[in-house]
Amino acid sequence: MLAEIITIGDEILIGQIVDTNSAWMATHLNEAGIRVKQISSISDDKQHILTALAEAHQRADVILITGGLGPTKDDITKKTLAEYFGVGFRMDESALENVKKIFAKYNRPLLDVNVKQAEVPENCEVIPNNNGTAPGMWFEHEGKIYVSMPGVPFEMQYMMEETVTPKLMHRFQLPRVIHKTILTVGEGESFLAERIADIENSLPPTIKLAYLPKLGQVRLRLSGYEDKAGDLQKQINHYAQLLIERIGKVVVTDQDVPLEKAILNKMAVKGLTLSVAESCTGGYISHLFTQHAGSSEVFFGGAVSYSYELKESLLGVKNETLWQHGAVSEPTVIEMVEGALANFKSDYAIAVTGIAGPGGGLPDKPVGTVWIGVASGGKTMVKKHTFGSKRLQNIERTAIAALGMLNTLLTELD
Amino acid sequence: MLAEIITIGDEILIGQIVDTNSAWMATHLNEAGIRVKQISSISDDKQHILTALAEAHQRADVILITGGLGPTKDDITKKTLAEYFGVGFRMDESALENVKKIFAKYNRPLLDVNVKQAEVPENCEVIPNNNGTAPGMWFEHEGKIYVSMPGVPFEMQYMMEETVTPKLMHRFQLPRVIHKTILTVGEGESFLAERIADIENSLPPTIKLAYLPKLGQVRLRLSGYEDKAGDLQKQINHYAQLLIERIGKVVVTDQDVPLEKAILNKMAVKGLTLSVAESCTGGYISHLFTQHAGSSEVFFGGAVSYSYELKESLLGVKNETLWQHGAVSEPTVIEMVEGALANFKSDYAIAVTGIAGPGGGLPDKPVGTVWIGVASGGKTMVKKHTFGSKRLQNIERTAIAALGMLNTLLTELD
Repeated sequence: MLAEIITIGDEILIGQIVDTNSAWMATHLNEAGIRVKQISSISDDKQHILTALAEAHQRADVILITGGLGPTKDDITKKTLAEYFGVGFRMDESALENVKKIFAKYNRPLLDVNVKQAEVPENCEVIPNNNGTAPGMWFEHEGKIYVSMPGVPFEMQYMMEETVTPKLMHRFQLPRVIHKTILTVGEGESFLAERIADIENSLPPTIKLAYLPKLGQVRLRLSGYEDKAGDLQKQINHYAQLLIERIGKVVVTDQDVPLEKAILNKMAVKGLTLSVAESCTGGYISHLFTQHAGSSEVFFGGAVSYSYELKESLLGVKNETLWQHGAVSEPTVIEMVEGALANFKSDYAIAVTGIAGPGGGLPDKPVGTVWIGVASGGKTMVKKHTFGSKRLQNIERTAIAALGMLNTLLTELD
Repeated sequence: MLAEIITIGDEILIGQIVDTNSAWMATHLNEAGIRVKQISSISDDKQHILTALAEAHQRADVILITGGLGPTKDDITKKTLAEYFGVGFRMDESALENVKKIFAKYNRPLLDVNVKQAEVPENCEVIPNNNGTAPGMWFEHEGKIYVSMPGVPFEMQYMMEETVTPKLMHRFQLPRVIHKTILTVGEGESFLAERIADIENSLPPTIKLAYLPKLGQVRLRLSGYEDKAGDLQKQINHYAQLLIERIGKVVVTDQDVPLEKAILNKMAVKGLTLSVAESCTGGYISHLFTQHAGSSEVFFGGAVSYSYELKESLLGVKNETLWQHGAVSEPTVIEMVEGALANFKSDYAIAVTGIAGPGGGLPDKPVGTVWIGVASGGKTMVKKHTFGSKRLQNIERTAIAALGMLNTLLTELD
């Protein structure tokens, strides 16, 4: 069963918004055994929407559409869908009730444009929206299913989880999809590929191996589909085991989780705790950890010490160290990481200090210069990196490098 | 001049990766006056790639392709492009030099698969890759331009900035594109629309107004194109002024910048400083600020006080307050924000404490309960929110609400 995702909205095509909806929907559909054939982002333009619908009709069984359902003039999805299906509109009582309820809750006057949100094409079944005023819509047309949902991420997510996916799973005999992902750090894609070439070549045609490189990490993903329950899972596990045996040293986890989550899991099992002292990453490392449920079991928190003063007062970095060696230096990062361990009383600590850029570079410390330290009970590891000139990339690369070092320290002290 | 972006890679279609490349490219092209007609993500599948290229050929003048250029077996973009154009391969000496240089720099053995990366379709002009081994490729075919680039974001970004966009601008007579964005907080989309309906209806056909809602914020974007330099800028400024006069109170800025950047700008102009005390947002607010160049002028840093202990030691929250009222309470957030002001010595401070979920809810404090405080010189504002059950959304909504409150406090104390 093939699905296609169509995202409608000029804001994506001019780059004002990153389309995170499609990735979320793709993950979610995949887990349910629905393959996504194509994702297209198109403009709020009637003719373009009609063409995209017709093209998707050729390729997919289910067409999932997000965006363009707001109450304002530039939102034309609903009107265009009615034209595509050749139908008129009807007022949906349940959708109208929902709009009224939301406006009553926030004590806002109900406007005409809001009442109009409860009008839907005659041939649709309404999908309740518990988080907003625009109803979702389910259509069946010439053997294909079309679902139109709002572009606001959490409105769409609740609709998918509560209504759309259960309905699709009930309707179709879905194949089993099995993925297994092995996360590696510190080894390049081509080097890995050379080392596992014979295993890759021995894969049966039902199993694919993909390399997913990202800033110092490479994910190896084995994927397979099967129509009926068979031994696919066993086969995939077998090949994953072969890969792990071959490249064991650079493997962080065989779960499909981000690097920081793999570290949290490792530390939680052992009852270890962590704190951080972040300068150039400015809270990003803390955010990586704390976005995960249950992180408070391991992660105490820490200091975002952007200024000299906070490096001294929160971490106990010596004033003379800062003035003699500078904030971006080996002695400073050592005092930061050891200060974090001592002051925040965790088992492990990470400290980073660097020049994220684009300004602030010095002749001997160009933009992209970063010192990273990780420490635990008497053992401190320190490393200098020289990244590039792009601020956000430097922040991200610093975070990944720090996580990689923490993973190494955890493994060494294992 | 119309462009189309094609992103190749199964990892996007299974949702393992969010396609941030397309948004970056779209912004970048737009600034250069190139309209993006469609963005499509397709799989590493020969037939699918061939179809997508043919469809894009019908719609666009320039087709920009990313992904599928790695050295491994699952990367088939290059082979498929050669088939599409009906050509063979040649070894490109400059690309080979680049591969050799990179492997020498990292002191890695040069593998056959890496040498193969320097082989390109005969009809292409190579685009140098200063950040990786896969060369970019520029093709001209039946009056259309095709550009193939790696999917690694910073490799693609440097190529676009250094080679592709300058080449496109040199080649085409590009129209002028003008956008003006007004950022508002705290007012719903439909309410805004009702208030400015007459202005929207009076817009000339060359200017479009879009509403871009996102978690408590709505951006109003005026866009226009003109073929030759005329008075479009003046017209857009005129309508922007009308909108701002009408809805002045909820306007944060008329620059196209994120909320936190608008706040940083406001504070920088006045020489004000800021610190934070983050519990449930776990570093995310700090990260929002510090991702922007120049933030250190305003932002001192602060505490990520996930544990009770750090709330006490870093912020001076009283032990009895925590035990009597709990970490998620009005008294705690007040002590946190006032502790941040006192300990971090900034002019303004933000504090947040809440239950991000999905676990940790209590009967009287369900998941999504959040207390936010902002303070400056004797004035403290505190507000309780009850968000939903999704952790990442709660973190994001808390951050936006805190920024909105800080903006209000800044305006009130103006």
